[in-house]
Amino acid sequence: MNSRAREKLTIFDTTLRDGAQTMGVAFSVEDKIRIARSLDDLGVEYIEGGWPGSNPKDIAFFKEMQRHPLASAYLTAFSSTRMKNRAVDDDANIRTLCETGVPAVAIFGKSWDLHVREALETTAEENLAMISTTIAYLRTRFEKVIFDAEHFFDGFKADEAYALESIRAAAEAGADWIALCDTNGGALPGDVARAVEAALSAVAVPIGIHAHNDGELAVANSMAAVEAGATMVHGTINGLGERCGNANLCSLLPNLEYKSGYRTLADGKLKKLTYISHLVSEATNRSQPEWLPYVGRNAFAHKGGIHVSAVRKNSSCYEHISPELVGNSRTFTVSELSGKSNVLEKAREMGIDLSGDPGRAAGILKEVKAMEARGYHFEGAEASFELLSARLLGTLKEYFTLHGFRVLTWADGDGKSWSEATIKAAVPEEVSISGGHADSVEHTSADGSGPVEALDRALRKVLEKFYPNLSTVKLSDYKVRILNEEAGTNATTRVMISSTDGKDHWTTVGVSDNIMDASWHALCDSLIYKMKKDDDALITKKEVAYAAQD
Amino acid sequence: MNSRAREKLTIFDTTLRDGAQTMGVAFSVEDKIRIARSLDDLGVEYIEGGWPGSNPKDIAFFKEMQRHPLASAYLTAFSSTRMKNRAVDDDANIRTLCETGVPAVAIFGKSWDLHVREALETTAEENLAMISTTIAYLRTRFEKVIFDAEHFFDGFKADEAYALESIRAAAEAGADWIALCDTNGGALPGDVARAVEAALSAVAVPIGIHAHNDGELAVANSMAAVEAGATMVHGTINGLGERCGNANLCSLLPNLEYKSGYRTLADGKLKKLTYISHLVSEATNRSQPEWLPYVGRNAFAHKGGIHVSAVRKNSSCYEHISPELVGNSRTFTVSELSGKSNVLEKAREMGIDLSGDPGRAAGILKEVKAMEARGYHFEGAEASFELLSARLLGTLKEYFTLHGFRVLTWADGDGKSWSEATIKAAVPEEVSISGGHADSVEHTSADGSGPVEALDRALRKVLEKFYPNLSTVKLSDYKVRILNEEAGTNATTRVMISSTDGKDHWTTVGVSDNIMDASWHALCDSLIYKMKKDDDALITKKEVAYAAQD
Repeated sequence: MNSRAREKLTIFDTTLRDGAQTMGVAFSVEDKIRIARSLDDLGVEYIEGGWPGSNPKDIAFFKEMQRHPLASAYLTAFSSTRMKNRAVDDDANIRTLCETGVPAVAIFGKSWDLHVREALETTAEENLAMISTTIAYLRTRFEKVIFDAEHFFDGFKADEAYALESIRAAAEAGADWIALCDTNGGALPGDVARAVEAALSAVAVPIGIHAHNDGELAVANSMAAVEAGATMVHGTINGLGERCGNANLCSLLPNLEYKSGYRTLADGKLKKLTYISHLVSEATNRSQPEWLPYVGRNAFAHKGGIHVSAVRKNSSCYEHISPELVGNSRTFTVSELSGKSNVLEKAREMGIDLSGDPGRAAGILKEVKAMEARGYHFEGAEASFELLSARLLGTLKEYFTLHGFRVLTWADGDGKSWSEATIKAAVPEEVSISGGHADSVEHTSADGSGPVEALDRALRKVLEKFYPNLSTVKLSDYKVRILNEEAGTNATTRVMISSTDGKDHWTTVGVSDNIMDASWHALCDSLIYKMKKDDDALITKKEVAYAAQD
Repeated sequence: MNSRAREKLTIFDTTLRDGAQTMGVAFSVEDKIRIARSLDDLGVEYIEGGWPGSNPKDIAFFKEMQRHPLASAYLTAFSSTRMKNRAVDDDANIRTLCETGVPAVAIFGKSWDLHVREALETTAEENLAMISTTIAYLRTRFEKVIFDAEHFFDGFKADEAYALESIRAAAEAGADWIALCDTNGGALPGDVARAVEAALSAVAVPIGIHAHNDGELAVANSMAAVEAGATMVHGTINGLGERCGNANLCSLLPNLEYKSGYRTLADGKLKKLTYISHLVSEATNRSQPEWLPYVGRNAFAHKGGIHVSAVRKNSSCYEHISPELVGNSRTFTVSELSGKSNVLEKAREMGIDLSGDPGRAAGILKEVKAMEARGYHFEGAEASFELLSARLLGTLKEYFTLHGFRVLTWADGDGKSWSEATIKAAVPEEVSISGGHADSVEHTSADGSGPVEALDRALRKVLEKFYPNLSTVKLSDYKVRILNEEAGTNATTRVMISSTDGKDHWTTVGVSDNIMDASWHALCDSLIYKMKKDDDALITKKEVAYAAQD
């Protein structure tokens, strides 16, 4: 613990901006909205959403976010200072920025004389003017203006006085925060600490740290900056970011909170870190790196026999913190007892209390393990897990029975393609709620611009006359991952489908060595989940009405 | 640079022992021998090869190594101190150790009173006796004895005096080195520095640091220990290791050498780091993590247009060191954030010089941007980018013309599914190299466990008789992403396919609103890339032969 114990730090997340620079990562607008909401719920103060001047997708995101206002975080847009030798209001980037409707902006400018000369090709004076006029202009148009001092640490080494002048220009023009950036990611903790101290002496504005990981020191450098007096930390979920990534908030926040004694997020919120780490991994369509500190699947996994027996005696023997503090859990690779508490925990989240029925929890666990061995993955597909549990507990109605389906795709030589699906299924009499053709075998076809759309339409044609609520369900995302990569096209395929009825969002999973079959399973679960959800709500409503009559 | 500039540090590699504890990693004896030789060639002083007392594979490795003596490194075996209340020569572990024939041993013992009480269930005195009798016994039997003070930093926090007593026992018994272990990986750099200083005051034996990464601080903690006076560093290649891994030598050594000014390996040897990082990744049967500092594929990859244009002016603008220093190289990728400079750089990498023809570069960029707006994504799909450029430059042969395809998938009610594809395509006469049915229209079908496999098989049936080289191509990965820009049913699908012919690896991309059509495009590009690659090699060979005739 330090002399500033319990001091609150301000958390600035840039997963959606700097994290989107990760090689091979391309978030959809839908992904970005989902992540932004989760970060808002996590309680970070700033969510940097993109650089509207650099690409149309970020403009679309900010536009869409006007319809989904955040509960507490400042949605932040990123941009550079104005171009050289130009008026601020004559700069297209700045104009685009002002149209985003966000409350906060982060503006990067040059603090390293080398960059001023060689990258910008301008004078030291013009660079300072670019900083101060841009900040002054934006100060009156946004609630919060953050100045990102690009290459501050390299600049401080090369020309200490000029680096400090650059942040003084931003401070005097009215910046609310100055974030010192280790843009090339090569700084050492000692250098960072000295430069932060110098910056704090030079300006009266609070200081932030924005570290990259090129020396595998982004977390350490961020902590050194905080120890030296910085009060804002920038980072990304899972350390996403260009080249070697940015400071990983999933490691940095628990370090600062549980080890150095600062306050980072509101009480209890760090427990959501493991969840949000998986969420972001899924959005990048990659598995979460298992080794990730605190939140990774292996972070509290015990392999060696000595470790396992010692951890059983006292978990602090081989665990640096309790995994529950970050929403993770301990696993023993040699023991099947490990996961049962997870099942109990998940069931509890879903409103099913299995704690008095360990046999049932064990039964569910066994089935989950068998399905996971086949490639299922229920983290991030809670709707399928809920249906699986209900099926195993015998509480899931049978909404329909598949007799078979067929999906056909054609393409001609001119680049035109189309698909058609045919489904044969039976809807049992007792679940018909609209009084239609109950217990009848339905056999119908539909087309689509692709095979999954065709399947979806054909299945709805079968079901919607019995379950009209299904018309509100929209598929909002569809993701495919190949599991045993070395098997090529003959590999196991996992499909995850996200759906919404305008009120709730849910995700389902299907696994098969045939992508169409995997899609079918995820699709069915999506619609069954909706039917079950509405049935459950109806029961609750009836119970409430019944209770009110008493 | 520090006051001990150019001081030589001793490097202790534990990839084959602690690294082998990584979840999911199992080195074969052959892998271990290969890695040990590479580490020996790299010039590390100690190579810890395993724990002979814990498993027969490690015994086999040490036996096999007697036939492959290392050139300079000490091959080191790992074990614990003797069991409690037993004579050293009555301990099976110790006897096994003495049969390995290695010159050095690393012996771990307890420095944390909690572990002595709760894990060992013995007295403080007996633990000290276990340390000193074991070290004294082995001292006369091995050239070098290292004492691994397990949990030293946790022990130092809990009971400073006892932790120091434990290492004093090892020092007085004749240990050559004392390595202070952060076994749970949760220490902070400041705590490490203070404990190292105390250890150095307590014993006259040189001190090493063995750090784990549970706080994402293993590299920083190792550097803090060195700054405090430790002269040996333990670590693994790529940071392999139990839970979150060990200190990553691929980051730690260049940091210590190029940034802090110590000497780590002999001159020029750090250039082998990128190679050895890939070698170890292959032995673990996983792709090398692309983000790895210094040695990863993305460590010097530039994505944004601003970064690329600045790096072209002066590489230190966005690179913390020169990639050649660690045997890595700079790459430029082509993406929606890129500008013309990326295209020029990328083309240059492919051997196409567009710098004298800015119009063509602009033309390619325009097409790239238009295709990216439709959902293409060339970053990570360089093969498709190369084919696109060749198409736009008019240098790509037409290998075949598609007349049309059809893919059919059936599923029955019992969970069985299967797929069939039919293709009609023409192969023009002039590209037939095997003298087969040139210019003929081929019309053929194939089945598969899924629709993409069926398509792949049918396409090969058409092409392989004309292009027999295609039989060596295997699809190694298949990824699907839905780009949900315009929400709803009309989603765009992006498919990426990775392929290999056993020699090269390449990735291609296809985009369509129909997943089958998108798969088709990626599949075609994959095979066309192979045909073009072999043609290009043939041309080069002919040119070489022709030049030789002159």
